[in-house]
Amino acid sequence: MPLRELQYPTQPYSKVNRKKDRADYTLETIHRIVNSCPILHVSFQPPDSPFPAILPMIGQMGSFARPSADLGDVLDLYLHGYVSSRLMNLNRTSTSPEGLPVTIAASHVDGLVLSLTPNSHSYNYRSAVLFGHAQLVTDAAEKLYAMELITNGVVPGRWAGSRVPPNAAEMQSTSVLRVRIAAGSAKVRSGGPNDDRGDLEDEALLGRVWTGVVPVYTVMGEPVAGEYNRVGEVPGYLEDWRRETNKEAEEFAREAVAREGTSKKAAE
Amino acid sequence: MPLRELQYPTQPYSKVNRKKDRADYTLETIHRIVNSCPILHVSFQPPDSPFPAILPMIGQMGSFARPSADLGDVLDLYLHGYVSSRLMNLNRTSTSPEGLPVTIAASHVDGLVLSLTPNSHSYNYRSAVLFGHAQLVTDAAEKLYAMELITNGVVPGRWAGSRVPPNAAEMQSTSVLRVRIAAGSAKVRSGGPNDDRGDLEDEALLGRVWTGVVPVYTVMGEPVAGEYNRVGEVPGYLEDWRRETNKEAEEFAREAVAREGTSKKAAE
Repeated sequence: MPLRELQYPTQPYSKVNRKKDRADYTLETIHRIVNSCPILHVSFQPPDSPFPAILPMIGQMGSFARPSADLGDVLDLYLHGYVSSRLMNLNRTSTSPEGLPVTIAASHVDGLVLSLTPNSHSYNYRSAVLFGHAQLVTDAAEKLYAMELITNGVVPGRWAGSRVPPNAAEMQSTSVLRVRIAAGSAKVRSGGPNDDRGDLEDEALLGRVWTGVVPVYTVMGEPVAGEYNRVGEVPGYLEDWRRETNKEAEEFAREAVAREGTSKKAAE
Repeated sequence: MPLRELQYPTQPYSKVNRKKDRADYTLETIHRIVNSCPILHVSFQPPDSPFPAILPMIGQMGSFARPSADLGDVLDLYLHGYVSSRLMNLNRTSTSPEGLPVTIAASHVDGLVLSLTPNSHSYNYRSAVLFGHAQLVTDAAEKLYAMELITNGVVPGRWAGSRVPPNAAEMQSTSVLRVRIAAGSAKVRSGGPNDDRGDLEDEALLGRVWTGVVPVYTVMGEPVAGEYNRVGEVPGYLEDWRRETNKEAEEFAREAVAREGTSKKAAE
């Protein structure tokens, strides 16, 4: 853990311009949002397309050089995904020594904030955006590190709980991208509804419209055994993780409602 | 409903190149994924940035010209979001008559597919990408239509259940983007684990590694009343919707495991 909280530099392309009190540039906050997000959205501009590309991918922050680094340290983002052939090809042919410029978004919805008027409705949310340069990982040891990191990022302990290490054909067919991060930002909203004074003084309105928050969270449901499963009991590492994750997710969403937050109108 | 299923044209930038059997270009499939996604990721390339921008936004597909159009019809995407000032400014200064080129992604995770080896692990998921040109909505009636569409997209019935219509200041301060869609694609994976023959013939491995699916779904939790709420009971439209949505979400994720799917290795 660094002695003081590290922050990403604010660049013109990464600076939060609206609702600045919701902005957070600390590495730990941003990395935590990314690592807990089951799907990341990775965007890049293909040279031959009128539109940017967006690919849903799986990824985790980590440090191959210093595997014991924690979330507040300088980390790389490792990405893996089925739908990445265009990105992989682009990366292979990229002439930039730094790699392909990519932007990665990670977003969690924590609640629907229902206030008196549609315009003051909001979400409680945590969102992070990272900007960096992506390169294919070619070193076998680093690729193996990233594959384990990403697998355990989906279910902690799953790597050791499955058939490892990957064989030569699997190592060959798996592409992993490493993104060196240039900048990043997070935006977080918590708290309850917040309405304008005019509406708050309208007694009839207050008596008619329910205001509050619907907490939103993701549940990891009861495991369903596959057709060729022969292991009678769902493994402990999976059930422990599921129980803990589900409990934390629900608590987080509920607690976000009361959390000293960024629900002040003045913050816009 | 059109007499036959409409499909988006496959463009070089929109074509699914890998795992093609998971691809779906029908408007209904794509629009359904977008409309049920609480957060959309909107990407565009700012002229002065080395990286594409990604903004998390709220949106719904609809047709102002024909409000009764259903999900399988030609629709526009209406977008609204706090963090959109850069996008709005770019759009205002865009010289393209068609509008700003944007790409929009909507992704749902339906399950963690845990197989024998990390390389055959997967997600059950539904993801959609739309490509189009964004323009600011300037017509007051269309803006009002979009605001109602988006509010009811978050909680059906909420528009009428809150203080409407928006006053002049609210209409003025709210920006809505309309995206005319040029192309789009969806990718859907369902089913159970699928491993290579070599692993399936390994008796010791089959006896050791649990294989199956952890269904993943989003829950709308117990509503938490806000500080100035005075309405005793949570409204029926909210509770009915919550109950139905939660039931459907869990069922969908569980049923995805058994659904005739795209889990065949041959499909790669």
